[in-house]
Amino acid sequence: MPKVTSGGPTRDHGDPGDAPTVPPPLIEPVNTVRPSAAEEARTIAASTNTGTLATLTEHGDPWASFVTYGLLTGDPVLCVSNLAEHGRNLAHDARASIAIVAPATQSDPLASGRVTLAGYVEAPDGEERTAARDAHLAAVAAARYYIDYSDFTLWVLRVQRVRWVGGYGRMDSTTGAEYRAAGPDPVTPHAGAAVAHLNADHADTLAAMARTLGGYPDTVAATCTGADRYGLDLRLDTERGLAYTRIGYPRPIDSVDELRSATVELAHLARGG
Amino acid sequence: MPKVTSGGPTRDHGDPGDAPTVPPPLIEPVNTVRPSAAEEARTIAASTNTGTLATLTEHGDPWASFVTYGLLTGDPVLCVSNLAEHGRNLAHDARASIAIVAPATQSDPLASGRVTLAGYVEAPDGEERTAARDAHLAAVAAARYYIDYSDFTLWVLRVQRVRWVGGYGRMDSTTGAEYRAAGPDPVTPHAGAAVAHLNADHADTLAAMARTLGGYPDTVAATCTGADRYGLDLRLDTERGLAYTRIGYPRPIDSVDELRSATVELAHLARGG
Repeated sequence: MPKVTSGGPTRDHGDPGDAPTVPPPLIEPVNTVRPSAAEEARTIAASTNTGTLATLTEHGDPWASFVTYGLLTGDPVLCVSNLAEHGRNLAHDARASIAIVAPATQSDPLASGRVTLAGYVEAPDGEERTAARDAHLAAVAAARYYIDYSDFTLWVLRVQRVRWVGGYGRMDSTTGAEYRAAGPDPVTPHAGAAVAHLNADHADTLAAMARTLGGYPDTVAATCTGADRYGLDLRLDTERGLAYTRIGYPRPIDSVDELRSATVELAHLARGG
Repeated sequence: MPKVTSGGPTRDHGDPGDAPTVPPPLIEPVNTVRPSAAEEARTIAASTNTGTLATLTEHGDPWASFVTYGLLTGDPVLCVSNLAEHGRNLAHDARASIAIVAPATQSDPLASGRVTLAGYVEAPDGEERTAARDAHLAAVAAARYYIDYSDFTLWVLRVQRVRWVGGYGRMDSTTGAEYRAAGPDPVTPHAGAAVAHLNADHADTLAAMARTLGGYPDTVAATCTGADRYGLDLRLDTERGLAYTRIGYPRPIDSVDELRSATVELAHLARGG
């Protein structure tokens, strides 16, 4: 089972979020288990097929450029032209990082999750080359038109260092090894409809969860902002202002199909069951 | 008036686009005027408020990270925390570049326009600082919650070198001076409805333009894929396969309000007027 961090969000600096101050919980939340930074990073990397690569020019200057990628055990597989500036840069200096932004779910861009994967590129050989080629093609259908052109090179970015930012005030770092050992969340990418259903039809239950399980007995209303294999993220209107909390399921789930039974169980617990 | 390049697209390498080969025009197109690389870059930079910054770590490694920005005469204005890795990097080494991707209009991500703006950052002083602060706030509303925090620094990226990629096979480089002197296109961001109208109600006229003005007398059908102040981009079904052409207006236009009269004039020319 993947490593799980518990407890509140990691904060690097004063929260510049929606409110000048966020009221703290009045009682200890019951279970704030959430995905590890490595899992969050794997989930973001799996959520799209485009990112921005940072490479070094011949003068050692930093060069940002748009790329597509597939994933091989979490390591990005790039297919770039040797005639393009980033292709020349990689051939000259293998150091690289890629920034990947999760598809936006909120109007404020800095509320989106994003990750930087840093390391160095290598051109894969033999069976790994076949697997890398397949991984790129699976993610980038249009690459079939150019992947075998002589001026294109397939590169695997060997991730050594990972920086994950989950939005305002949630962030952490991890190693390439932890990142590769983690798995992308099986629930998050498929939870949109279920989350919308919770908000549309079970707002009272969400508020009850926030009051008894989430540490905010003064909750007036609660909105679910996301679900993953470990629990639900809630945004709260409380008598003291806007707040956020986390409601972990009693046990992690493995697919979105288990989300209904997990939330029913949480509802039962929230009502003193 | 901004500098205008004419002639066909700039190609760096074999086109890896939708078809193995693209049929050339059978006759010389009448007017293929289009925005310069500097104008294309300014238009892309003005189309959003997020990009990816490349900076150098303390070890000189390339570091890619998501940022928001405003624009001051085209130069990106960043507001980043000194506690974040990219903030520490900029304080240590001012060299930076930013990659900006235009909002996607097609399912193939590599068909999107994007630009890299490279140079170095400076913390603006005095009146320029006020203008830079205003520019950032105008583009990034949520920055009002943190722009005055002591751990955030306002940086202006002094653009020295620009690389624009307009999609498959269209690309060019320009200088920071040309980029700053150019203006963002006044038509492109507002042309969506007009382009949809042309395709829905005037497909025959577009095909006639392609046949007599666009160099493809064997056009079977034509779709407008974009409009700017200088003309229309068309994608063609021809008897020889998929092709692309450019139809310049007789004179550049200054707003989307002039698009109708410009296309009526083109329709008249296309029918031998």
